[in-house]
Amino acid sequence: MTIRCVVWGENVHEQENEVVRGIYPEGMHTTIARGLAEDGMIEASTATLQEPEHGLSVERLAATDVLVWWGHKAHGKVDDAIVERVAQRVWEGMGLIVLHSGHFSKIFKRLMGTPCSLKWREAGEKERVWVINRNHPIAYGLSDYFEIEQTEMYGEPFTVPEPMETVFVTWYEGGEVFRSGLTYRRGAGNVFYFSPGHETYPIYYDANVKLVLKNAVKWAYNPAPAWAGIDKAPNTPADKAPNGPLEIKGGRLHRPGEEGFR
Amino acid sequence: MTIRCVVWGENVHEQENEVVRGIYPEGMHTTIARGLAEDGMIEASTATLQEPEHGLSVERLAATDVLVWWGHKAHGKVDDAIVERVAQRVWEGMGLIVLHSGHFSKIFKRLMGTPCSLKWREAGEKERVWVINRNHPIAYGLSDYFEIEQTEMYGEPFTVPEPMETVFVTWYEGGEVFRSGLTYRRGAGNVFYFSPGHETYPIYYDANVKLVLKNAVKWAYNPAPAWAGIDKAPNTPADKAPNGPLEIKGGRLHRPGEEGFR
Amino acid sequence: MTIRCVVWGENVHEQENEVVRGIYPEGMHTTIARGLAEDGMIEASTATLQEPEHGLSVERLAATDVLVWWGHKAHGKVDDAIVERVAQRVWEGMGLIVLHSGHFSKIFKRLMGTPCSLKWREAGEKERVWVINRNHPIAYGLSDYFEIEQTEMYGEPFTVPEPMETVFVTWYEGGEVFRSGLTYRRGAGNVFYFSPGHETYPIYYDANVKLVLKNAVKWAYNPAPAWAGIDKAPNTPADKAPNGPLEIKGGRLHRPGEEGFR
Amino acid sequence: MTIRCVVWGENVHEQENEVVRGIYPEGMHTTIARGLAEDGMIEASTATLQEPEHGLSVERLAATDVLVWWGHKAHGKVDDAIVERVAQRVWEGMGLIVLHSGHFSKIFKRLMGTPCSLKWREAGEKERVWVINRNHPIAYGLSDYFEIEQTEMYGEPFTVPEPMETVFVTWYEGGEVFRSGLTYRRGAGNVFYFSPGHETYPIYYDANVKLVLKNAVKWAYNPAPAWAGIDKAPNTPADKAPNGPLEIKGGRLHRPGEEGFR
Repeated sequence: MTIRCVVWGENVHEQENEVVRGIYPEGMHTTIARGLAEDGMIEASTATLQEPEHGLSVERLAATDVLVWWGHKAHGKVDDAIVERVAQRVWEGMGLIVLHSGHFSKIFKRLMGTPCSLKWREAGEKERVWVINRNHPIAYGLSDYFEIEQTEMYGEPFTVPEPMETVFVTWYEGGEVFRSGLTYRRGAGNVFYFSPGHETYPIYYDANVKLVLKNAVKWAYNPAPAWAGIDKAPNTPADKAPNGPLEIKGGRLHRPGEEGFR
Repeated sequence: MTIRCVVWGENVHEQENEVVRGIYPEGMHTTIARGLAEDGMIEASTATLQEPEHGLSVERLAATDVLVWWGHKAHGKVDDAIVERVAQRVWEGMGLIVLHSGHFSKIFKRLMGTPCSLKWREAGEKERVWVINRNHPIAYGLSDYFEIEQTEMYGEPFTVPEPMETVFVTWYEGGEVFRSGLTYRRGAGNVFYFSPGHETYPIYYDANVKLVLKNAVKWAYNPAPAWAGIDKAPNTPADKAPNGPLEIKGGRLHRPGEEGFR
Repeated sequence: MTIRCVVWGENVHEQENEVVRGIYPEGMHTTIARGLAEDGMIEASTATLQEPEHGLSVERLAATDVLVWWGHKAHGKVDDAIVERVAQRVWEGMGLIVLHSGHFSKIFKRLMGTPCSLKWREAGEKERVWVINRNHPIAYGLSDYFEIEQTEMYGEPFTVPEPMETVFVTWYEGGEVFRSGLTYRRGAGNVFYFSPGHETYPIYYDANVKLVLKNAVKWAYNPAPAWAGIDKAPNTPADKAPNGPLEIKGGRLHRPGEEGFR
Repeated sequence: MTIRCVVWGENVHEQENEVVRGIYPEGMHTTIARGLAEDGMIEASTATLQEPEHGLSVERLAATDVLVWWGHKAHGKVDDAIVERVAQRVWEGMGLIVLHSGHFSKIFKRLMGTPCSLKWREAGEKERVWVINRNHPIAYGLSDYFEIEQTEMYGEPFTVPEPMETVFVTWYEGGEVFRSGLTYRRGAGNVFYFSPGHETYPIYYDANVKLVLKNAVKWAYNPAPAWAGIDKAPNTPADKAPNGPLEIKGGRLHRPGEEGFR
């Protein structure tokens, strides 16, 4: 079994900012993809904002099992139609891993239905990521906690829906806390948000972070066939009811065979 | 204490369809609002699609504790800016009750982040609404179940996120089932979806349905002050960290005092 | 409306340990109850381990809306029959607030179905309690966070089921984190766990802690009549089925009118 | 990879009741185990009430990945110590599938913390099991629904905690509904309750039921090492705090190195 994973990178800071380029000379997406490819089950490729359709054509997405998303400065430049396309694929069963500043990406806000806001501070302080359930598939192989020496603080309140599972909670040197690993399901798609990953620190080279991402891709992978038509509201007419045929009673709005309203 | 409730009605079928007008000559919103006003704690007014800003001005929403939403044919005619305005108010703490065909309303899909699709059949069959937790505030006063003699079937799969609570599950004469009462929280706002309420049957005159709606408005009401700025991501600079002042380490993207990206 | 609240205290350390007696000369339960009684809606009395039936007779519990539980050293001395009695009342709708070392109380473990273990350290370090949802009824009136100058550290992993809501997350001086405020529902009863409250520090005199407890009692209160018989599995015979009478098909284990097995 | 699965059967009705023996001449546990073993990944053995330690010795459980539980008449005869042993293994990561009348088994009630009661009727009526999320691993390969021609009715309210996921909801000929497939996590263990399976009908020969059980075993399997000591509350002394050594402030209850109370 091979999991086809696409790492999407905004690829802006790497081009514009010397600090970021120094750390990620080939782009953050490339580094993240290399980390994933350490796992023999994962086949990782990349896509960026600058490519046609942001590298996320209908065909590409149809052949993607898990999408990893890193964006920050250019959230607003992501085309709304592509966002809807990605959302549809998540509902059909594609996994989605949203990283760090992706909390404010269009796709994450679209799937959460909440502001997804938080507190932040860029001071290179220490972060200690505590593992809530060490036997959760996303935490396999970790100890009680791991540390990131320099990080951007992301603090509560994180205005997301109550998660399916809280996998990680972070302690910060400056005094804040953050639910740094959260799982959701949207339609048939598994969604994981993971907060570490600020672009001015070499976080995606960290062994624990790479382990979390590899685990998360495997957790998010759903081998079932895509749930085609999940957004459709099919009519089951009276003569085809499970207990049918039914006698039609009372008034009607729709003519037989007519589509529902949207 | 008075709960300020606005019942929003699309008000289209009542104008165009004789069956619906016959049942709801003053509009469904008016009937729903009258049912709510039976409760001395609820002050119910109405708003419709046809009014300026759909009757949902900034001022009106700011003075609304709970919004009840009924729409069907004209979901697409609701202005996107008004939808965002309502979502913002829900996040700030306004309660929202979404009724029946409102499953496909822009506001419900916006808050759920999923397709919100389902199966349907308009055959006037019987629906039996089972109460999962009789002591849930939304179920106060109900028996084990109540029946609606003629209803539109809404069947599973209902593609919504896993709810906070499943309050009701419906049995249909034709053989389907439906999770007919579901609760969610989005930001500070309580959201309740309730499926009965097809416009060609006199469902909003039913005593049990009216009881559910009165209960739901009281459940959804959050007396806390509006969570202003819930969608903002405030910076907590290094010198104002709870444990601060912090020494700044490592590279930086943002200049001191700079706003974050969105 | 008056909420009848009983504060149950183990009342052992106050008798045996000078430090604790110095802080709580009348017992922790008395201090907690006085804090609650500051709220005009709450009528707070106390019960202790040493009283007959631990002060929790059938009659007393039947007249209790919300029970607050503080225990530590003598968990094992609480009578199993009383634990079952309390559990039954929670299922029927009585609220339960479990404090601090009560994480290992028989009643909390009984209702959670998990070990409820955690890490701990008694070093008088600082705790900063972060508010995840400021508009949650249990958090009304709090700021972004509040601090407790000297606390016992309770650290993750806290082996409880995923909660209905995470209301608070704590930051510790020593480097750990903890989900310090969690809500659950068990049957018709609302359950809240709140971790601050070590007996060698004057935590229950703290204004923020008292506010949380007052809020929690009001949140946990369920005005619905007790769900009598919630633990019974009633038979609905074939002739009394909602769609009945049903023709009986196939083999049978039970004779008509017979009770089910337990 | 092989999943080591033990099917536990009460094995009483098969001995005492002619109808049940006629359907399951080798015992229900044997039929269930054979169904599971159709899947090459599952190695299924059986254990029964009558064996020493009910067939669930410490060694056997340590070598079990997933336990399937069917009991009914003799719940009360299951030794409390064995129940605790099974609970401990679930917390450590062993999967548990609870079937039908197992809703009232000691182990299920132990893990849920609620009464787990329901309505019932033995009339051989039809059950239609609706699939809520067709891409859930437990539902792989099923259609929108499947039917069981003769079943025992289990009706709501089912007094269990709100599940992690509602996988199935059942429609009954007699008019009731039931959340017939529910998932939970307790400690590191995945728990699935599945309601079909009354002993007087040949339900465990049904292809769809067998598919659900095979899927459920694979879903429940957690390959992580057992979480040894999950029920322990380890002390992290001040000199070994992550940020340590900490200066000890304030009063203390415990002497250095002392165990916590239970």
